[in-house]
Amino acid sequence: MDEFELIRRYFARDAQASDVIVGIGDDGAVLELAPGIQQVQVIDTMVEGVHFPSDMAAADVGYRVVAVNLSDIAAMGAKPRWMTLALTLADQDESWVDQFAAGLFDAAREYDVELVGGDTTSGKVIVATVHMTGVVEEGAALLRSGANVGDTVFVTGTVGDAAAGLALLRDGEREEYLQRRFLRPRARVAKGRELIGQASAAIDLSDGLVGDLRKLLDASGVGADIDIECIPTSETLRQRFTAEEALEFALTGGDDYELLFTGPADIDIDDATPIGMVTAGTDLRCRLNGELVEVNDAGYRHFA
Amino acid sequence: MDEFELIRRYFARDAQASDVIVGIGDDGAVLELAPGIQQVQVIDTMVEGVHFPSDMAAADVGYRVVAVNLSDIAAMGAKPRWMTLALTLADQDESWVDQFAAGLFDAAREYDVELVGGDTTSGKVIVATVHMTGVVEEGAALLRSGANVGDTVFVTGTVGDAAAGLALLRDGEREEYLQRRFLRPRARVAKGRELIGQASAAIDLSDGLVGDLRKLLDASGVGADIDIECIPTSETLRQRFTAEEALEFALTGGDDYELLFTGPADIDIDDATPIGMVTAGTDLRCRLNGELVEVNDAGYRHFA
Repeated sequence: MDEFELIRRYFARDAQASDVIVGIGDDGAVLELAPGIQQVQVIDTMVEGVHFPSDMAAADVGYRVVAVNLSDIAAMGAKPRWMTLALTLADQDESWVDQFAAGLFDAAREYDVELVGGDTTSGKVIVATVHMTGVVEEGAALLRSGANVGDTVFVTGTVGDAAAGLALLRDGEREEYLQRRFLRPRARVAKGRELIGQASAAIDLSDGLVGDLRKLLDASGVGADIDIECIPTSETLRQRFTAEEALEFALTGGDDYELLFTGPADIDIDDATPIGMVTAGTDLRCRLNGELVEVNDAGYRHFA
Repeated sequence: MDEFELIRRYFARDAQASDVIVGIGDDGAVLELAPGIQQVQVIDTMVEGVHFPSDMAAADVGYRVVAVNLSDIAAMGAKPRWMTLALTLADQDESWVDQFAAGLFDAAREYDVELVGGDTTSGKVIVATVHMTGVVEEGAALLRSGANVGDTVFVTGTVGDAAAGLALLRDGEREEYLQRRFLRPRARVAKGRELIGQASAAIDLSDGLVGDLRKLLDASGVGADIDIECIPTSETLRQRFTAEEALEFALTGGDDYELLFTGPADIDIDDATPIGMVTAGTDLRCRLNGELVEVNDAGYRHFA
C-alpha cells in the first residue's frame, strides 16, 4: 500500500467544519478563519536515507525541507507567511544543527516566510518536518480538481534535472547544475501567484510528472493526451544523458518542484510549455512523436 | 545541549513580520492574518522509544499525539480548530495504521478539531508529528511571560500520575487509572479558555512541574516560592507509592498535561490548587513543610 492509498483509506474523512474549504487530498488545505480571509496549510517530511542521502550537507537539508513546502504553497497559488519545524535528530553535532539552520533560514529569507515555532526530538535517523501557512484571496486557491476537457496541459521550467542530479550524486559523480536542482530546488511561488485566475487546476511536481499528472486528472475526473517529446528538458540534461534517459528522468524522476497546470491554450504565463490536452474519460495517453507509449515508474515503452 | 538550548541557540530569531505577534519560545505562536483575528499554531512530535514505548497500543499513540498538541493550544487559551499530521512509519502493518487513525480521530472528535492534511513517509522508527491551529480573541492569548510579583502560582488537577503510570508500564505492572493518565492524557482546553482574562501567565505541564515552572518564570523575569507539600496528587498515586515517591513524580515526572498558571489569589477557577507565590528576582525556592529543599531532575533533597 503506497502513501496515497494509506492516506485515502485511513485518514481522508470528509471534514465536518464549515471553516474547512478544502481538506485532505490536494497539495494543501484551504481554511477560512473568518469570511473573506483564506489560508493554505501544508506539511511535508524528509527522512534521512529515504528522501535525501545521509551525507547530504546539512545546509542543503535545511534549505530543501523549506523549499518542498514552499512548492506545495505555490501549487495552491498562495503567498507563504509562517512555518513551524519538527526536527528529529539522531547523533548530529552542533555544527550540523548550525548548518541546517543556516540553510533553513536562507530559504526563509529568499521566500519571505517566518519560522514561528518548532519542536526538536531525538530518534534513530534525521526526520525533518515543516508545516507552512500561506494566504490566498477568498476562493482563489488553485486546486487539483478544476481541469476541464479541452484545457491545455502546461509545465513550468524544465523537468528531470533533479532526479538526474540525485542519480549522479548517488554514483559519486559531479554535475553542479543538475545536482543543485536536487539540493536547492526553486519553489515556484511567484508563478503560482501568476496562475491565479488563469489556470483551471495545478499541482507541483514532487513524485514525477506522469504520477503527479495522474493525481490532477483523478481529482478533476478527466483524462489527457500528452506528447512526451514536448516535455521541456534542460540542455545540460540532454548533453549529459541519452535522449531516452533524459525523457525517463523527465517523466518519472520526481523532485522537480515545477508546476503542472491546466488552462486555456492562450494563457498568458511565461516559462511554461504546453505538453498536451485534457480529454474526456479518465485515460492518460502518452505519445512519442505520434506513437502511443506506455509510461510507468520505470520509464516508458512502446506498446507491443 | 538540551532541546531548549538547541532551539534558543540555532532557531530562535526575532520574527521580522508584523503578523507574528508571538514567535518561538512560548507554548505556541500567536499569528494575525488580519486585524482582530488571531490564531495559535503549535507543533509536537512523538518518537517511538523516546516519547512512548514501542509496544504502546497504536490507538493510544494516535490519541496521545493529538492530546499533547491540544495541551499546547490549551496553555495559550485558544480553541482548537484544525490539525495536520506527519507520520513516519517503520514496518507497521495496516491494522496498526487503522488503530492509530482510530485513536487520532477519537481525540479529534472529543475536542472538535479537524484533520485537514498530512504526509506519510517511511523511516526506522515511528515518528508522529501533529501541527495544530487554534483561534483566540485578539490580544487574549495566555503567554508564559505575564507573571507578576505577588501573583499566586496554581496548578490544575493532580500531577505525577502520568509519570507514575509510565514507570509502572515499563515495569510490566498494571494500574489502570495511572496508566490511562499517561496513555490518554486529558488536554485542559476548557480550562485554558476559562483562564483568559483571569490568569497572568500559563504553561502546560509536559516536562515536569519544576522544569516547566522554571520556563514560565524565565519568560516572565521573576522567581517563585513553592510549598511542595501543597502540590496536588491523586489518592491513587499516594496509595500506590510512598509519600516521597509520589512527590518526586509530581515535581519532575512530566506528561501530566495539566496547566500551571499565575494570577490573583482569589481567581475564580475550579479544580486549581495554589502551590506558591511569584517573587521578585529569579530564584525558584521550593519548601517542604517550611524547610528549603533542592529540586532537580532526579527529585528533591534537603539542603545540607
